[in-house]
Amino acid sequence: MTYVAAAVSVSADGFAAGPHQSRENPLGDGPADELHRWMFETPEENAAQREALLGADAYIMGRNMFGPVRGAWPDESWTGWWGDDPPYHKPVFVLTHHPRPDVPMAGGTTFHFVTGGIHDALERARDAAGDGRILVAGGAATINQYLAAGLIDELTVTVSPVLLGAGARLADGVPAQTLEQVSVSPMSLATHITYRVRSRR
Amino acid sequence: MTYVAAAVSVSADGFAAGPHQSRENPLGDGPADELHRWMFETPEENAAQREALLGADAYIMGRNMFGPVRGAWPDESWTGWWGDDPPYHKPVFVLTHHPRPDVPMAGGTTFHFVTGGIHDALERARDAAGDGRILVAGGAATINQYLAAGLIDELTVTVSPVLLGAGARLADGVPAQTLEQVSVSPMSLATHITYRVRSRR
Repeated sequence: MTYVAAAVSVSADGFAAGPHQSRENPLGDGPADELHRWMFETPEENAAQREALLGADAYIMGRNMFGPVRGAWPDESWTGWWGDDPPYHKPVFVLTHHPRPDVPMAGGTTFHFVTGGIHDALERARDAAGDGRILVAGGAATINQYLAAGLIDELTVTVSPVLLGAGARLADGVPAQTLEQVSVSPMSLATHITYRVRSRR
Repeated sequence: MTYVAAAVSVSADGFAAGPHQSRENPLGDGPADELHRWMFETPEENAAQREALLGADAYIMGRNMFGPVRGAWPDESWTGWWGDDPPYHKPVFVLTHHPRPDVPMAGGTTFHFVTGGIHDALERARDAAGDGRILVAGGAATINQYLAAGLIDELTVTVSPVLLGAGARLADGVPAQTLEQVSVSPMSLATHITYRVRSRR
């Protein structure tokens, strides 16, 4: 059966982005860049976690993670933050209210735009992943919707050394629940903690 | 110079207690007991962290951590949650709006009631601790006041395997700021992460 993972970097006080996210400032106000320093500044020691983030068989992401364009797609020019050869190399299902044709990229990544909601996207990701692993890649709002629906098997929280105090909160709207801590990887700029989530599927 | 540490157990989404804290339910609603399971169920493997929590030279705590009594002290009967011989064995400064005589306990713990606010309590704890270590023991509201005032040198966040979704939030009202991760201790029921806080004293 397909395994559904999610991964998110949060501040020590539980925020996945600062307040006032915008096109110019996609992570919001304050020192929110600190959330992802581990990924960019210490890639070697975080190779395993990067592989966990980029080694899935299919991906689901929110539209805000795909790009800054809002509303109906004005044209086909925006093809993600990642250049011609995105690091996914697999199908990526992008949640949006606005239909758009598939965007095949170099290296095997294809962006599929799903207007039917989170269950529809998961269904399509399952078809693509077979018995493999699906990663709900973000942002926090998308991960929270899947957590609230009980559709996540495993959640990796990367706790970064910053306090944000406000912004997009991990687990906002998610029912209170116990988790099972299954692994911890302390790195120099963050700590990866992986939890098994009691799935309700 | 005195060193000021603070320590708090939080959910993976950053809450130090659930919603609706009350006398009967001091940690609030939901699975908030999960926050402290590590302390009670796996004391041996957490000996170092327990020593960090109980090996300070003076303590500061909020009145709600000292006990459930609110308003003026009706009598002298409440002497803390910890029985005749509390585990502190040092002066404990309890923040309160209501004066009360010192309460000396067995084993060297004395509860001092401080009505002059957080700076006054810190001053008195410094006098007691000398060049030693002061622990701001909790709860979250007290730790947040000291963090907001820039008076904490070191913060240990124990991330427990639970999502609470609401309640008393770590760093509520604290300015956004970067921290320095100095040590991580992964344990079976929680992960202790210690940060250096850029003190503004």
